[in-house]
Formats: sequence, structure tokens, C-alpha cells
Amino acid sequence: MNNPVIDTLMNRKSIRSFTDRIPSDEDIELIVRAGQQAPFAYQMGSLLLSRDRERIPYRAPLYFIPCIDSHRHEKIMERRGWKLVQNDLLLLLFGIQDATLMVENMIIAAESLGMGSCLIGSVPYHADKIADRFNLPPRVFPLVGLSLGFPDEDPPPRPRYPLEITLYEEKYPEFNEEDIVRAMKIMDDGYLAQDYYRRLGAMIRLEDGRSETYSYDTYSWTEHISRKTGQWEPMPDDLIDQFTARGFSIPGYTRIEKNQG
Amino acid sequence: MNNPVIDTLMNRKSIRSFTDRIPSDEDIELIVRAGQQAPFAYQMGSLLLSRDRERIPYRAPLYFIPCIDSHRHEKIMERRGWKLVQNDLLLLLFGIQDATLMVENMIIAAESLGMGSCLIGSVPYHADKIADRFNLPPRVFPLVGLSLGFPDEDPPPRPRYPLEITLYEEKYPEFNEEDIVRAMKIMDDGYLAQDYYRRLGAMIRLEDGRSETYSYDTYSWTEHISRKTGQWEPMPDDLIDQFTARGFSIPGYTRIEKNQG
Repeated sequence: MNNPVIDTLMNRKSIRSFTDRIPSDEDIELIVRAGQQAPFAYQMGSLLLSRDRERIPYRAPLYFIPCIDSHRHEKIMERRGWKLVQNDLLLLLFGIQDATLMVENMIIAAESLGMGSCLIGSVPYHADKIADRFNLPPRVFPLVGLSLGFPDEDPPPRPRYPLEITLYEEKYPEFNEEDIVRAMKIMDDGYLAQDYYRRLGAMIRLEDGRSETYSYDTYSWTEHISRKTGQWEPMPDDLIDQFTARGFSIPGYTRIEKNQG
Repeated sequence: MNNPVIDTLMNRKSIRSFTDRIPSDEDIELIVRAGQQAPFAYQMGSLLLSRDRERIPYRAPLYFIPCIDSHRHEKIMERRGWKLVQNDLLLLLFGIQDATLMVENMIIAAESLGMGSCLIGSVPYHADKIADRFNLPPRVFPLVGLSLGFPDEDPPPRPRYPLEITLYEEKYPEFNEEDIVRAMKIMDDGYLAQDYYRRLGAMIRLEDGRSETYSYDTYSWTEHISRKTGQWEPMPDDLIDQFTARGFSIPGYTRIEKNQG
């Protein structure tokens, strides 16, 4: 079967090295328009764009920052004579989905034009700096970054969990330990075979005086994500502060009100 | 330019009427695998699948429910000797993105196979019922629904905001009121020209004794989303209860602890 859409989806991988070639304005418009045609709840996604390559992760020629844009939404409501009353937690739940559906379409559109990209997940923790730089009004929250351009590397697609721990028909199973072990082996052997973490120099340091027992010959995906979620960000305060500073209340009240209550 | 990927992205629209044709298991697997190859932060998305057509929105032959699956993630951490410490707000922020990137790839893959789909946003408010029905363990949260099958209708793609209120290079602008009015007109005229809300019978009733001034000749997109976010769900309590009942704490503590504090 010849299906160029499935081929494009299956062959996508994150790109972290880019040539100097600058995508044309026509291609940028095509990518953004394809992004917009994704489904939405409220069409809450908007996009910041920078071409300041020296400041862009992986020195890509383009950097998009998909935002949850309630400012625009509320402007439109105002002209219809409405005020927003929906709680911010629900608004963010839909807003994150709107912006993410959009950015995945952009990633796929760019692939089809011969480009590559990499998502940057740390953006919410720098929302204050991004807001200063791009002059964001309140009620616009930068969700994620997308470095984009023509690839200067051609890595293979990365491994994924097998279907038996991904797709559950009618009933979520009691996990079979063998299935878990097999899934871990697929992920870890797959990344090791691609020498992924060594090439990136991406081993996460152990904290709290734990001593290292891994080398790049053994360190792989399951240990990597375990260190991220087993060591990093135990408290939500910094993230809540970033949402609050952008004018979003979680879970429906601000910190100051919470302390007064 | 002949680009079947861009064409597929640009021509997608939500489908709410399906033929009796059942997608093959091979096609289902292809769609799920294409979904999995989307980028992720922690590969936190997993999928429930039902074929119980009588209970599926719009009587589609297939219903996927993408979930944020920290249960699986924590099983894997456990086998690596780790315990999850990351706060749930950040975990959900990444988990929502992981599941949403996956589902958009599934939507596009299905389109390329001649199928259509519709996202169902109300799923989080029924998380308790879905958990009962699919026997979900704690730490699995159903994010959204996806009705999927072969289309029995062929509507046009729906309008989107113009680029001048979507893409901002280097600086978020002071909105020009003319741009807002123009964007509203594009959205409203576009949906009216397609007779979208009349066909769906989707006008939202005014609450609090407000009297109706719209008919299906005038009711369109900006009024529709204004009524949703101007009338519905002012309090986050129900949503927080659903997250809490699934074992997720927002923002890092449970309601009971909050009341005790």
C-alpha cells in the first residue's frame, strides 16, 4: 500500500540539527494554515514566531511558541456582549488540547515539506520571560516551543511501547509483568541500538547523593524518564506561579486569595 | 504543488454520521501505530477502544478514549527502582499534550484511509463512569473521546481565524479592532454559509432568564463559543473531583486535605 500520509506520520522523529536554509514565507503560511485546520474546542491556540536563531533551541531557523490565548477569545466574547465565566482549569484543559492539536498538524505539515522539528517542553517554566520578550497581554499562556527548519541530520524513527500496553479493548487489563518487562526491553534496547543518549549527552545526574550505576552502554529510555519524574519538580508552586502571573487561576482562585482564606 | 499530506490536513473536518462499514483490524493497528509515533514528553498516552456502537457518540463503529496513563508509567518506574515524585499538575500538563499529539496523528492517519472522526470533549466530566466501565486503575485519566469510522456525510472544511490574529512575529500586538471584527465576520459568515448550527440543531439555550435574540439565520460561531464559556462551568469543583477520584491531585493536594488545612 502506498500511503504518503501514513509514511510521513511513521517516519517522523525529532530533529535537533538544522541547515542554514530559511523556510519560505509561503511554506510558513502553509504550515500554520494546516495547523489551524486541526479540530478544536474553542480555537484557543495562537502562535508566536521568532527567527532570532541565536536564541532558538538547537539553532533552528524558526521557533514557534503555541499559546493558550484566552485574551483573543475574551475580546471576541466582549464584542458579542459576553463575559467569560468558565473556570480556568477547564479552559486550560481545552486550551492545551487546542494548541497541541494545532502544533501536531504543523509538525506533520513541515515533515511533508522536507523539514524537521523538535518540541521544547520547558516553555511553561519560562512563561514570565517569554511574556516579557513577546509583550504578551494577560490571559495568554505559552504552552510549548517548536524549533523548526530543514534537517541537518537523519536519525531513524524512535521506538514506542508495543500495542499490548497501549491499546485496551473494552477493559483496562491487570498488567502482565511479562508485558511490562517486554515493553521496557523494546524501549531500552531500541534507544541503546540508536546510541541515543550518548549522542545527545543526555544522561540525567542522580540527586540526593545517590551513586551512579549506569554508563551510556546501559542508560536508556526507562531509566531516563524515571529520573525525570522521580527527581524533578515535586512541588507545583513554580508552575502555578507561572499560570497565576499570566492571569490564569488554578484551581479557580489565586494564591493570594488562598492564603487569605 | 501536489502534497497529499497538506491536502489531507487542510481537508479534515469533523464527521458526525458514519456508514455501517467496520474498519479492519489492520487499519485500526495502523492508526494506533501512527498515533504512537507522535512526539511525546513521557509517552503518557494510552487508548481505550470500544465497538459498542449503540453507546458511541454519533453511532460510530469505533470509539477511542485517549487516556493520561500514569499507572503504566509508575509500573515501569517501579521496576527501575524509582517512585514518582513529580507534582501532578506538571504530569497532567505533559500527559494532556502526549495524549493529544497522539490523537491528532490518529485523526490524520484515519483521514488518509478514507475514514472520518469527531472528538468528544465532555469525557473528563464522565471520567468516573468511564473508569467503572473500563475497569480503570487509579492514575489513569480519560482525556477525550474519538468517534471514528467511514463517513456517511461530506461536509466542507470549517472556517478558521485569519492569520493576522493567529500568528505573531516577535511581538504580540495590541489588537486592532478592525482585525477582530473581520475575524469574527469570517468565522460567523463561514459557519452560516454552511448552515452549520441549524443542521446540527446546536444552538445553546440562554440561561438566567435571558431572552433569545438569535435565530438560526443569525446564530453562528462567535455567539456559540461565547455561550459555552460565558455560561458553562464557572466552578472547577466537578472537574477537580473527577481528577481526584482518578488519583490525581490538583494542585498537589486533595480536596480533603484542603478542607482540613
